Amino acid sequence: MRVVDIILKKRYGGTLTKEEIHEVIDGYVKGNVPDYQVSALLMAICFQGLNDEEKVNLTMEMLHSGEQVDLSSIDGICVDKHSTGGVGDKTSLAIGPILAACGLKIAKMSGRGLGHTGGTLDKLESIPGCSINVSSEDFFKQVKEVGVAIIGQTKNITPADKKLYALRDVTGTVDSIGLIASSIMSKKLASGAHFILIDVKVGDGAFMKDEDQARQLSKTMVKIGNSLGRKTVCVLTNMNEPLGNAVGNSLEVIEAIETLKGRGPKDFTNLVYDLCSKLLLMTGVCKADKDARILIKEKIENGEALEKLRQMIKYQGGNPDVVDDYSLFKKAKEVVPVLSEKAGYIKFEEALQIGVGAMMLGAGRENKEDDVDHSVGIVMNKKVGDYVKKGEPLAYLHTNGKGTKEAYDKVLNAFEIVDEVVEENKLILGVIE
Amino acid sequence: MRVVDIILKKRYGGTLTKEEIHEVIDGYVKGNVPDYQVSALLMAICFQGLNDEEKVNLTMEMLHSGEQVDLSSIDGICVDKHSTGGVGDKTSLAIGPILAACGLKIAKMSGRGLGHTGGTLDKLESIPGCSINVSSEDFFKQVKEVGVAIIGQTKNITPADKKLYALRDVTGTVDSIGLIASSIMSKKLASGAHFILIDVKVGDGAFMKDEDQARQLSKTMVKIGNSLGRKTVCVLTNMNEPLGNAVGNSLEVIEAIETLKGRGPKDFTNLVYDLCSKLLLMTGVCKADKDARILIKEKIENGEALEKLRQMIKYQGGNPDVVDDYSLFKKAKEVVPVLSEKAGYIKFEEALQIGVGAMMLGAGRENKEDDVDHSVGIVMNKKVGDYVKKGEPLAYLHTNGKGTKEAYDKVLNAFEIVDEVVEENKLILGVIE
Repeated sequence: MRVVDIILKKRYGGTLTKEEIHEVIDGYVKGNVPDYQVSALLMAICFQGLNDEEKVNLTMEMLHSGEQVDLSSIDGICVDKHSTGGVGDKTSLAIGPILAACGLKIAKMSGRGLGHTGGTLDKLESIPGCSINVSSEDFFKQVKEVGVAIIGQTKNITPADKKLYALRDVTGTVDSIGLIASSIMSKKLASGAHFILIDVKVGDGAFMKDEDQARQLSKTMVKIGNSLGRKTVCVLTNMNEPLGNAVGNSLEVIEAIETLKGRGPKDFTNLVYDLCSKLLLMTGVCKADKDARILIKEKIENGEALEKLRQMIKYQGGNPDVVDDYSLFKKAKEVVPVLSEKAGYIKFEEALQIGVGAMMLGAGRENKEDDVDHSVGIVMNKKVGDYVKKGEPLAYLHTNGKGTKEAYDKVLNAFEIVDEVVEENKLILGVIE
Repeated sequence: MRVVDIILKKRYGGTLTKEEIHEVIDGYVKGNVPDYQVSALLMAICFQGLNDEEKVNLTMEMLHSGEQVDLSSIDGICVDKHSTGGVGDKTSLAIGPILAACGLKIAKMSGRGLGHTGGTLDKLESIPGCSINVSSEDFFKQVKEVGVAIIGQTKNITPADKKLYALRDVTGTVDSIGLIASSIMSKKLASGAHFILIDVKVGDGAFMKDEDQARQLSKTMVKIGNSLGRKTVCVLTNMNEPLGNAVGNSLEVIEAIETLKGRGPKDFTNLVYDLCSKLLLMTGVCKADKDARILIKEKIENGEALEKLRQMIKYQGGNPDVVDDYSLFKKAKEVVPVLSEKAGYIKFEEALQIGVGAMMLGAGRENKEDDVDHSVGIVMNKKVGDYVKKGEPLAYLHTNGKGTKEAYDKVLNAFEIVDEVVEENKLILGVIE
């Protein structure tokens, strides 16, 4: 079948066969199908959607376009946790060590931040000496011995997805449930874990602004994962305010460490418990949520989780002493409080604007090539539901001078302060399994 | 505005401004906007459509992407007649001379055939010596002195349309009322005539299969033309069977000459009268349809129309004696009758299959680069409504050997023969003005 006929089939609402999807995707990766045909097909998909079978076939096609990680040499249950990206999302750094302390294996390949959302790799690199470029051999060794490793990609994983994503980004075809789900799931499947937990962020600071859409995306990913033999669960979580207090690389690592010491911010700690419990139940390590929470609490209180982080940092060439001495992190030159201009209750703090503010300070990248300043960022002093007095700090900018004024305004304007009492945000919006 | 934002605006149903349309089209022609962005936008337009203002702006943008023909030096009323393409459509060859004999000026730039539809330029070139490559100077001279010239493009007309059309062809985005209307109208407007008559073919042998769609396209073109100051009328005509009897280049020229002698096939003769009358009324040359028909009949009967064709051929370097001596045309080696395998009334004869049959014999091009054999083609012996005996010829293949067997089967299968009496096809389906 000619590619133009495949495009027309989708344009008029037809269902693409496995072979047709292969012809386009494989041809595109090999350079035989031009990008102008693929972008037309992508736009047709945005309008006509993909049915379950097409989504599975597209995921498989992208999965098989590159190498896959084979975790079969690792004894134990390999799990993966993925976040669709948010502001202040340092969850993997806390969850990985806790789950490893509970006996699970976390062989995680992570990504870098772009735009207002941070990336786990950048956070890890803020730890002096810590490397995310680890050989496959060392990666497997670390997972076997420590139980947790979070690194950059070791293999040429899902090249089709990379090429497609770059094209979608410039052709207005990013926002399509089927395309997003296939993109995420192909990468997760290629990473080899047999239990996959996906934290789907919803809200103004997330990729998905709309809860219904996020729910639909979650259902789709669960269906794809399960139908390909990987137990997949999605948790929908609120991203209308930053997660925890810290936004920015070393600031977030410190907050993750604090959480492993049992002193983390309430919302972030709750999420860590929720997600860890979900994975412990999925894998059958625990039988009931109550048991899981007791186990997690124990691993935090007896220091085993923190010890796992220390080992992980050490194995990846970093200085494990950072866990006990935060002065070893690079510090920003100045801390500037953002002062409230009125008194009242925090009704809303736009995560997007806080993320952009942190980016302006240098904590994130506007373009893929930009450098990141690991020391800078923002620490929230007030969260939704809190009361603030006039002149009291809403947040603190950790800055080296770049973009301070602009970030100050962004952060100040991110807050909506009202007279009436406001309830805290509900963090978990739903679980799809 | 970034092009990706323009694409997203259309994807979500927005209305593109004049400036946004300019940014994409002008950028595309200049090579600053890549084809993969344009194809995504085209697909979004296929789903979301274009409103009247967008259609006019797109037409204007394409019109201004190249040169325009300035007919102001020609005294008299300049008219243009365009067909959206069909099988056996030699109308321009008969209409041009008749209208010239009636005092109108026809400065027409025509196209070549592709696929199962023929092109006027190929037909003209079947006249020995006749050239369609005429300089602008000679073209204007001919129109002034003879009143009619039909040639290939002398100028770089609507390059944006050419580039867009080539892209639409391979990205499944041809079929969109707004895009088709803008494409046709930009070319017609660039050709300079102030009265434009468009013959919109409808049926299995036409680009538009569906009458409602053709009606919508017609309304759109009339709106665009009139809103840009050119009186535009569309006539919807049946293309469920070939027009007239002859399909193939010199065969069609001969049929046009016969028609100018008053001996043409009934359906074709009727269409010629209808379209000529419409143009004579549009331009105010005649006040009533009845008067127009009397004038047309007179110009045919007194030989003035035929004389205009003779002069046109002579001015374009051809041998005008062909008008009186058909043996001067290249003849096919063999004439093969396609015999009916049953008796009955012709219910249907698929114009598409007849067109494809003619192409197989060498009368048309499968690809733009293919050569055309001017001598071959098909002459219908039976039309819809006719009675045929078993073994009687349905049509005659004029062949030089190439594709005879395949064409025979195509033509035979194109006929549906039934026992009940069948009415003739209605030729004119509607007039939109």
